[in-house]
Amino acid sequence: MRAMDFATCQALDADDPLRSFRSRFDLPADVIYLDGNSLGALPSHVPARIQRAVVDEWGRDLIRSWNVNDWVDLPYRVGDRIARLIGVEPGCVVACDSTSVNVFKVVAAALAMTDRKVVLSDSGNFPTDLYVMSSLAELRIVEPEAVLESITDDVGVVALTHVGYATGRMHDMRSITAAAHSAGALMVWDLAHSAGALPVDLGDSEFAVGCGYKYLNGGPGAPAFVYVRPDLFDQFRNPITGWFGHAAPFDFSLEFVPAEGIARATVGTPHVLSLIALDAALDIFDDVDMDVVRAKSVSLTETFIQLVDERGLPLSLVSPRDAGSRGSQVCLAHPDGYAIVQAMIDRGVIGDFRSPDVLRFGFAPLYISHTDVFRAVEIMDDVIRSGVYRDSRYAARAKVT
Amino acid sequence: MRAMDFATCQALDADDPLRSFRSRFDLPADVIYLDGNSLGALPSHVPARIQRAVVDEWGRDLIRSWNVNDWVDLPYRVGDRIARLIGVEPGCVVACDSTSVNVFKVVAAALAMTDRKVVLSDSGNFPTDLYVMSSLAELRIVEPEAVLESITDDVGVVALTHVGYATGRMHDMRSITAAAHSAGALMVWDLAHSAGALPVDLGDSEFAVGCGYKYLNGGPGAPAFVYVRPDLFDQFRNPITGWFGHAAPFDFSLEFVPAEGIARATVGTPHVLSLIALDAALDIFDDVDMDVVRAKSVSLTETFIQLVDERGLPLSLVSPRDAGSRGSQVCLAHPDGYAIVQAMIDRGVIGDFRSPDVLRFGFAPLYISHTDVFRAVEIMDDVIRSGVYRDSRYAARAKVT
Repeated sequence: MRAMDFATCQALDADDPLRSFRSRFDLPADVIYLDGNSLGALPSHVPARIQRAVVDEWGRDLIRSWNVNDWVDLPYRVGDRIARLIGVEPGCVVACDSTSVNVFKVVAAALAMTDRKVVLSDSGNFPTDLYVMSSLAELRIVEPEAVLESITDDVGVVALTHVGYATGRMHDMRSITAAAHSAGALMVWDLAHSAGALPVDLGDSEFAVGCGYKYLNGGPGAPAFVYVRPDLFDQFRNPITGWFGHAAPFDFSLEFVPAEGIARATVGTPHVLSLIALDAALDIFDDVDMDVVRAKSVSLTETFIQLVDERGLPLSLVSPRDAGSRGSQVCLAHPDGYAIVQAMIDRGVIGDFRSPDVLRFGFAPLYISHTDVFRAVEIMDDVIRSGVYRDSRYAARAKVT
Repeated sequence: MRAMDFATCQALDADDPLRSFRSRFDLPADVIYLDGNSLGALPSHVPARIQRAVVDEWGRDLIRSWNVNDWVDLPYRVGDRIARLIGVEPGCVVACDSTSVNVFKVVAAALAMTDRKVVLSDSGNFPTDLYVMSSLAELRIVEPEAVLESITDDVGVVALTHVGYATGRMHDMRSITAAAHSAGALMVWDLAHSAGALPVDLGDSEFAVGCGYKYLNGGPGAPAFVYVRPDLFDQFRNPITGWFGHAAPFDFSLEFVPAEGIARATVGTPHVLSLIALDAALDIFDDVDMDVVRAKSVSLTETFIQLVDERGLPLSLVSPRDAGSRGSQVCLAHPDGYAIVQAMIDRGVIGDFRSPDVLRFGFAPLYISHTDVFRAVEIMDDVIRSGVYRDSRYAARAKVT
């Protein structure tokens, strides 16, 4: 393989079919933002859309907005837009609540559909998924590599995050779903690090959840989403039976009657302002083919890994070297990972740190370029070789890492 | 009692210690907004604060905002501001999730603290509370007037909304809490129609929840809140064990260890944008004494009822006539209630309709005046006497009433 240099990165950018998208985001000029897998960047048109929602819809139209601005259907309109990105039909995704609450709903609902008591997950799953499931079932946690062989016939539900938050390791969705089903288990996927970053093939998985504020760029704390396979709507029992999941919320009857369709996966009043931000952010994806996004994502992560390799930096690759098993992020390990990340942030390269020693870099294909990747590695190289990261100011842990 | 006329209303407004607050809200000039109990009005300074949050905190500071803009403590900062309004100490209220999800948490937690299986509620409770509880326990629903005598010694949890959404009827919080406790039951209050409208005396009630988008003016779908009595923190078992309720979320450990204090009532990533809107809206309450708010609220509802009485309109009073048993709203019944409300909205008086025949008018004391009340009744009188509400355009039910 030819060595990677700046000119090659420039050439790759010149050929990038997504190169025009960078201008649709507001990113500070002095920042290379490699943390879109934690909080997506701000699309340029979103502030004006939120302002309209606040001033015109809330301030002027007031309560009438539920009808005149169709707030009441927002969770479904947004859900339909996400549905396209995760490769499912309209009408089976709804945007609501947080990912954690949605994991609770679908795993509880899955457990109600089986007599088996065991939920199988892996140690690469995001902790909140594990925490939520641990209070619902007997949770069996295996290494990610051991999932397939661990789907024994006492497992009722297999619940995994498609792309691991701390490694970028990507499960083979199709083979695991098939194995779960042939063992008589139900399949739940968390798409937090997939939706908006790569195409998803849920196949006949029963349930999925995902996050609105990472690659979908919905803003901090954006509503999450839930997918229910359409033939299961009638069997789906949401454990939290709130009024928006009722067949006729505005009849105000005393008895709960579940709504038809995906509406029964909702609970309380929609988080309207946050939904409007997410809805606006999704405009950008209207013009995007997820296969093109994936191709660029692979190119960015390959370039990053090659540059780290070529510079001989004292970092070990935590993410899979095979792009086919890797999401849109690259994780590296170093004993002083926390301090290195802080020193890089000080120099404008924003990644993040994941305990115990992982430097994590996300590559959102809509706004990151190959030359960004080149410069980021250059700065990382300088931070490490200069030893500047050993400065005491980079040692103190912040509340949020 | 002297007949109520416009000049008297003007005099009452001139003496109103809260009269200056009206100018701190953006309300359309041609609207009399009597639906702040459903969606609070927009405080004038909130759009700029949201814009800063979007452009500077999300767009410019990006992921760093969790630390530099202290997003991570927002649920607690907002909770502390609400704590003052509901008469409890800082540190025992957190703003998060929806009211429905919070009802689920506290009622499930309460049931885990007792061997009894029955939850007692009343038919005046908001349906979502009843729906959520019906899937958690054996739910016994009695008439609001029968609550006290129904607290038998098989009742584990008494869960009520302080002010009924469809009548404005207000429970005597102190006597019901005392009766619950002397029967060995735990007490849960829903303050959706209380917080920001009147002083609350939770006494030694175990739990409370409430809504951010009614009298607190937090915007459509604002986060709700949860109160846990501080001596119960260690016993409080949140049924949804998400990462923000973990003792150390950023350690990313595989095992759930509940946080100390009110943090264990949280679940997923905070809804930051919505929390910032609610936080900003609460600025207005910094300068407000809830006893003064209550005194004005009583004056507004008394004025409204007197005017309706004096005009001899064909409406029956659904709300209690005694102000001491009434919240900040007045409900009237008419067989054509839906159409009358729509015709009034057409003429700028925004109230709402609650099934089957209730015209509901909320009086948010910070932005409603006695002259507003006078004009609203005048318009209602005209709508009813002219028969204009019988026009077919007022008959078709909207999705949201």
